[in-house]
Amino acid sequence: MKRRVAVLHGPNLNALGTREPAVYGSATLAQIDAAIVALAAQLGLQVEISQHQSEGEIIERIHRAATDDSAIVINPGAYTHYSYAIRDALASATVPKVEVHLSNIYSREPFRRRSVMSPVVDGTVAGFGAESYLLALRAVAAMCDEIKR
Amino acid sequence: MKRRVAVLHGPNLNALGTREPAVYGSATLAQIDAAIVALAAQLGLQVEISQHQSEGEIIERIHRAATDDSAIVINPGAYTHYSYAIRDALASATVPKVEVHLSNIYSREPFRRRSVMSPVVDGTVAGFGAESYLLALRAVAAMCDEIKR
Amino acid sequence: MKRRVAVLHGPNLNALGTREPAVYGSATLAQIDAAIVALAAQLGLQVEISQHQSEGEIIERIHRAATDDSAIVINPGAYTHYSYAIRDALASATVPKVEVHLSNIYSREPFRRRSVMSPVVDGTVAGFGAESYLLALRAVAAMCDEIKR
Amino acid sequence: MKRRVAVLHGPNLNALGTREPAVYGSATLAQIDAAIVALAAQLGLQVEISQHQSEGEIIERIHRAATDDSAIVINPGAYTHYSYAIRDALASATVPKVEVHLSNIYSREPFRRRSVMSPVVDGTVAGFGAESYLLALRAVAAMCDEIKR
Amino acid sequence: MKRRVAVLHGPNLNALGTREPAVYGSATLAQIDAAIVALAAQLGLQVEISQHQSEGEIIERIHRAATDDSAIVINPGAYTHYSYAIRDALASATVPKVEVHLSNIYSREPFRRRSVMSPVVDGTVAGFGAESYLLALRAVAAMCDEIKR
Amino acid sequence: MKRRVAVLHGPNLNALGTREPAVYGSATLAQIDAAIVALAAQLGLQVEISQHQSEGEIIERIHRAATDDSAIVINPGAYTHYSYAIRDALASATVPKVEVHLSNIYSREPFRRRSVMSPVVDGTVAGFGAESYLLALRAVAAMCDEIKR
Amino acid sequence: MKRRVAVLHGPNLNALGTREPAVYGSATLAQIDAAIVALAAQLGLQVEISQHQSEGEIIERIHRAATDDSAIVINPGAYTHYSYAIRDALASATVPKVEVHLSNIYSREPFRRRSVMSPVVDGTVAGFGAESYLLALRAVAAMCDEIKR
Amino acid sequence: MKRRVAVLHGPNLNALGTREPAVYGSATLAQIDAAIVALAAQLGLQVEISQHQSEGEIIERIHRAATDDSAIVINPGAYTHYSYAIRDALASATVPKVEVHLSNIYSREPFRRRSVMSPVVDGTVAGFGAESYLLALRAVAAMCDEIKR
Amino acid sequence: MKRRVAVLHGPNLNALGTREPAVYGSATLAQIDAAIVALAAQLGLQVEISQHQSEGEIIERIHRAATDDSAIVINPGAYTHYSYAIRDALASATVPKVEVHLSNIYSREPFRRRSVMSPVVDGTVAGFGAESYLLALRAVAAMCDEIKR
Amino acid sequence: MKRRVAVLHGPNLNALGTREPAVYGSATLAQIDAAIVALAAQLGLQVEISQHQSEGEIIERIHRAATDDSAIVINPGAYTHYSYAIRDALASATVPKVEVHLSNIYSREPFRRRSVMSPVVDGTVAGFGAESYLLALRAVAAMCDEIKR
Amino acid sequence: MKRRVAVLHGPNLNALGTREPAVYGSATLAQIDAAIVALAAQLGLQVEISQHQSEGEIIERIHRAATDDSAIVINPGAYTHYSYAIRDALASATVPKVEVHLSNIYSREPFRRRSVMSPVVDGTVAGFGAESYLLALRAVAAMCDEIKR
Amino acid sequence: MKRRVAVLHGPNLNALGTREPAVYGSATLAQIDAAIVALAAQLGLQVEISQHQSEGEIIERIHRAATDDSAIVINPGAYTHYSYAIRDALASATVPKVEVHLSNIYSREPFRRRSVMSPVVDGTVAGFGAESYLLALRAVAAMCDEIKR
Repeated sequence: MKRRVAVLHGPNLNALGTREPAVYGSATLAQIDAAIVALAAQLGLQVEISQHQSEGEIIERIHRAATDDSAIVINPGAYTHYSYAIRDALASATVPKVEVHLSNIYSREPFRRRSVMSPVVDGTVAGFGAESYLLALRAVAAMCDEIKR
Repeated sequence: MKRRVAVLHGPNLNALGTREPAVYGSATLAQIDAAIVALAAQLGLQVEISQHQSEGEIIERIHRAATDDSAIVINPGAYTHYSYAIRDALASATVPKVEVHLSNIYSREPFRRRSVMSPVVDGTVAGFGAESYLLALRAVAAMCDEIKR
Repeated sequence: MKRRVAVLHGPNLNALGTREPAVYGSATLAQIDAAIVALAAQLGLQVEISQHQSEGEIIERIHRAATDDSAIVINPGAYTHYSYAIRDALASATVPKVEVHLSNIYSREPFRRRSVMSPVVDGTVAGFGAESYLLALRAVAAMCDEIKR
Repeated sequence: MKRRVAVLHGPNLNALGTREPAVYGSATLAQIDAAIVALAAQLGLQVEISQHQSEGEIIERIHRAATDDSAIVINPGAYTHYSYAIRDALASATVPKVEVHLSNIYSREPFRRRSVMSPVVDGTVAGFGAESYLLALRAVAAMCDEIKR
Repeated sequence: MKRRVAVLHGPNLNALGTREPAVYGSATLAQIDAAIVALAAQLGLQVEISQHQSEGEIIERIHRAATDDSAIVINPGAYTHYSYAIRDALASATVPKVEVHLSNIYSREPFRRRSVMSPVVDGTVAGFGAESYLLALRAVAAMCDEIKR
Repeated sequence: MKRRVAVLHGPNLNALGTREPAVYGSATLAQIDAAIVALAAQLGLQVEISQHQSEGEIIERIHRAATDDSAIVINPGAYTHYSYAIRDALASATVPKVEVHLSNIYSREPFRRRSVMSPVVDGTVAGFGAESYLLALRAVAAMCDEIKR
Repeated sequence: MKRRVAVLHGPNLNALGTREPAVYGSATLAQIDAAIVALAAQLGLQVEISQHQSEGEIIERIHRAATDDSAIVINPGAYTHYSYAIRDALASATVPKVEVHLSNIYSREPFRRRSVMSPVVDGTVAGFGAESYLLALRAVAAMCDEIKR
Repeated sequence: MKRRVAVLHGPNLNALGTREPAVYGSATLAQIDAAIVALAAQLGLQVEISQHQSEGEIIERIHRAATDDSAIVINPGAYTHYSYAIRDALASATVPKVEVHLSNIYSREPFRRRSVMSPVVDGTVAGFGAESYLLALRAVAAMCDEIKR
Repeated sequence: MKRRVAVLHGPNLNALGTREPAVYGSATLAQIDAAIVALAAQLGLQVEISQHQSEGEIIERIHRAATDDSAIVINPGAYTHYSYAIRDALASATVPKVEVHLSNIYSREPFRRRSVMSPVVDGTVAGFGAESYLLALRAVAAMCDEIKR
Repeated sequence: MKRRVAVLHGPNLNALGTREPAVYGSATLAQIDAAIVALAAQLGLQVEISQHQSEGEIIERIHRAATDDSAIVINPGAYTHYSYAIRDALASATVPKVEVHLSNIYSREPFRRRSVMSPVVDGTVAGFGAESYLLALRAVAAMCDEIKR
Repeated sequence: MKRRVAVLHGPNLNALGTREPAVYGSATLAQIDAAIVALAAQLGLQVEISQHQSEGEIIERIHRAATDDSAIVINPGAYTHYSYAIRDALASATVPKVEVHLSNIYSREPFRRRSVMSPVVDGTVAGFGAESYLLALRAVAAMCDEIKR
Repeated sequence: MKRRVAVLHGPNLNALGTREPAVYGSATLAQIDAAIVALAAQLGLQVEISQHQSEGEIIERIHRAATDDSAIVINPGAYTHYSYAIRDALASATVPKVEVHLSNIYSREPFRRRSVMSPVVDGTVAGFGAESYLLALRAVAAMCDEIKR
């Protein structure tokens, strides 16, 4: 296992920080990305971050991560709840996979309480704001360590 | 509030007029757009019209409208019924938002009777053919007037 | 088609303006009726407005409109969600029929999100407050014009 | 009816053969395409094959087939189960349309057992691996023959 | 048991014959009533017929029938499907009770396939047009004979 | 239309009269058949009665009735609630068809409240004991008269 | 808060005592009203009692109570389970509101176990026969005392 | 019937008054217990009060009340919604049984709107805060009086 | 694998061609059987065709096919949707199994959209009229070839 | 009560032992029957065993057992889950009735977890392989003893 | 496998015999325990019996049985229907496990028809009163014999 | 905010490591606790760990944590899916609260995919084995830091 991680931000996450801060926090995506980069360095993980509005692009990015033997940290945004196409891409990628949510999706509208991604990832971290991404990075690091052993 | 409106046509609406006229009427999209432009001029609204097949493009267009402080008149086509990603984009846009349908979606197949957009827009106009767009424009004009006051 | 319209206000709408203004707006029914009368005059529509608490009365009124060859603009209030008897009356009336709601019923309690009237009317306008009635009047006018042609 | 067929592979099908062979078989997409081309030649069908990750592209491709009077053989991948936008594109295309699945979708996870495409195509072939595409081609040929007659 | 029968026609049945003849037949309510009166005379039943738009009136009429020891033949129209208040009135009336429908309600829209009245009447006759009422009268006559014996 | 009627008794109806008289009454099948024969004679109908435990036999009998241009009076017993094979046989038979039930199936266990036959027959008579069959015969006679006219 | 209470009996309650005593007890409505009047006097409450078969009348009575600043004790009978129009009237009345049931509605038929009124009243008392009304009166008295304080 | 009452407070009720006062009021459990004791004395009822976190203890307490011929006033807290074991204990106790809730459970989260206890108690009082317990005591007193008579 | 195929036609298929041609086509069962025999000869398959109204007979036929090591092509007619007994017979038969439907069952009544057979067969062909059987034969031939290899 | 028992094996049970031994065990039906005969002799029960593929035959057999005053031990195979016709036959037979399953049906596919027979038999034994039949025989013996006493 | 059995009685079973004898029989728990002890001796099984009101205690007892390599016969009472914690304890215990019910749970209230325990035990015996426990003991003995072999 | 954390292990977690290692991993609870203690020391958190089989004890422990102003890390085991009593205890505790699961509950049996706790905690970590607890500790540390700031 290479210590490589693709961090994928799903649709609408570009608007973070400036809109609906009550739900998603006041950190901008740039600030979150900076924190991710910093922790990755500390954990010895090589990180590549991208944001996508489109399902097709996310599928492409997942296929590339699988080919590159790169772990995946993904916040699928609203695709979480219905994109079986992204789910299939994740299912076919045999690398460490962590699903991340800024908000506690389980305490929001009914349609947000179910993730079609969760059954095909290794684990889920939800509800801790920007910290969710950092915990996911640590989970990836632990999985890489375990595989190495 | 600037008197600006983005009119978004969703997937398959390019085929209007030539296909399934029994359901969607015989007006082409070009004819509808002409009527929209004419009424917008009359109402003092600056209008920008676009048609998109892809969810990602529609999300981008909504974000731009929000940034431009432009009202939104949207016919999300079949995305109406499942695109929570577009819904999230609409929810994050704090501008006047009107959902439009050519046909009476409530009298069609069960899956068409529910709109995931409706809970996050200001109001809905459905069932009047091309006239639906014109009524939506008038609704936007009324909202602009109210905000100005 | 005669340019005649019956505007029907359903149960509890008499209390408008003084109660629950956060949901239904601060306009009284009298103020809405005045705006309807003014626009009808402008559109060359002969309008007759009534408010009813009882299902039976609303059914009678619809039958009379059908007999008079009068279009119908109806806000069925809470009957919207369960009165199949009113629905049957509307279904049997072969005149232009528009359903109107002051509030965006699709963003309220689950039971309010479904209208048993929608499948049998021509179209629906919801969420624009008193303006909803005015847009409905315009829709009727457009339908009258189309029929005449 | 021209003897022309557009064969559309949906999302993730590019990964065929190298991933999850237990479910989808060990044939690569290139091998399947070769078999399709060979049989098409034998049946006198002019075939054009493409693979797409994105809903929007698939919609475009279907519109083009409809315009070209080309039959459609489509494996919509995971979009099968929720893309009403693709369904609408198929519904508006008045050409022979066959839905294809490599695996027996009816014996898999519950969400895969329902196709939103099936109601708007002519017929479905599922569960025979790469052979499914070949049977679909034959079905198209038979439909072309019938139309000619 | 007196050989007395109250025949109740529910909402919208006044419009019979002139509207939607494809569903409800071309007989007017007056013609049906004449046939009922004729058969009642032949069967030695004293009949009283009324039509009501309002739930409250129907409840009153049922209470009076119960007090008068009169059998009930009722076509509750659309109230069939939701008026638990009429159901309670029927349930409390310990006289022969027959539910009648002109059309075959079980082959129409889903909401029409369930009658909340059926569980509290003696029996149901549906689908034979005006003949349904005549069969119901005969059923009442048979029940009266049985009680007498 | 010949005045011929096939009366079909479904499974378990042979046990009538001796078992569960509280639900099904104390008349035996022989007594009911005698009453049917008597009324048929009076109505000028040629009747042929049979009882079947097996789905397959009932389907055969329906096909023969359809071929003979004979009306059908059927009490499908418990098959009422699930035999789509019998339903298909009934649907394909273009003769007068009446569904009969001894008991009021709508006031019994939930699974008995729905008939898969009802949508494909002309009408239903339920709840009047043996009288149900006699009313059904009269309904057939009326339909024959109507067709003759 | 004036110590005034409108007691509303819904449909069919006029038949109390003489019908179905096993479910509703043997007290007549007159006897219950006498007990209500007696206790009201004792609690210093001015009481006005009425019984209504019709939804529309109940709505009118609730509006009048709201206008009169009178508390409401209501047994909506079968309307309990579906009259959203009465619910809306109750919701708009900002006075103490208590829902009353003679029987334990939660141990009866499924459709009776859900009250559409309960979410918009202050509290519910069910299952104690005529005593339910008296407990409701005491609840109103306690609420009046609390508001005064 | 001895005039004895066991008052049972379910899980988490010990935290009353200091936590979530918006939902449950600001009275502490000690204050409520004092009011209960005072009213019990006035009504000539011998009262024994206890609070339990555990299902098992509540079941034991109910069995003891049944053995002691003591009425039961119970607020089962969150067990209300799923403890069929407590329900069975209540069902087996043939003494007067009243279910009590401080809040109006019918206007809260969906899972709280259904009580599995309600079908097996005599009656329910909900929504009046601490007063709910006092009304329940009065209901018990009335039931004791009735049994004595 | 012997190149032997049992073709089973389910209930009501004997009526093919003469009844409901709009749904099932105008070919008779004899014509379809002739086409099957012709193609089987061409594909080197030994075919045995039978039609059955009864569930029990179909089960027997499947057991015999399994014992004979014969592939199965089955159109279970309406049993498709509920006969778990036939499903169990199919599941226990370890031979190539193809499910066939003349019509596109997925675009018909809701009860027809689900096949209880599909999860236990190798694949399904639906919607191509008589051609469906021919495609199924080819699928069997392909499976035989694959097994031989 | 005569000590007589009819043991009925439902559809597909003839294939036992040779097929799907992982689910149903490796004992053949002949071996199970021998064990049944041996234990019956020991318990003083006169046993008659039969296996049936067809619903109709099973119904006949149950009627004969009821007439013979013979207890019934039945493994209805897949009919367990949907044959209301067999259920009605069992319900009408007032003899000891035990339902038997080889496998633990409650841990298999969802459709197998519900038996429509269970509500009308005395008891159920499931999950112990061939031993299930032997326990059922003992249950019958115990019921016979109890009735004798 | 040691011939050891832990027999667990769930909540409320202590009240057996004196309460609700119509449902649960008139035998007391002591009488049932005596019969269990007697049969266990006869079968060479070492038995330990206990009754528990609390979920936690039942879980502890199951863990101890698993550690002691003791078979489990459990009547989980009302916990049957919802205690996933007891289910997990049972699932983790790799010893013979039999679920027992005195009454036929499948013919009682809907909530009692589903056992969350059944999927994780070896088999179930239900409906034979006290005899159910004895059949379960015999099932355990048979399983012990099989394991020994 | 004191840097104090109560770590609660729910029912059956004592059996960890020795049973079902395929699902829950091979680490024992003692090993997990040691890792928790070590990381807590590193993060400057004062930790107190306990395991409980009983709902009541867990509720008590949560109340104590709330009183002590201690954060809560809880793995509620199977109570996760139904204990509204524990949920209420958590909801009333205004301290940082993290829900932890060893396994990916979202990819297991349907009943395990829903947590009634999730809506009332701050966040959830699931699927990383023992590492899940460590990530939860880090989340608590981050929340403590944030509150301090």
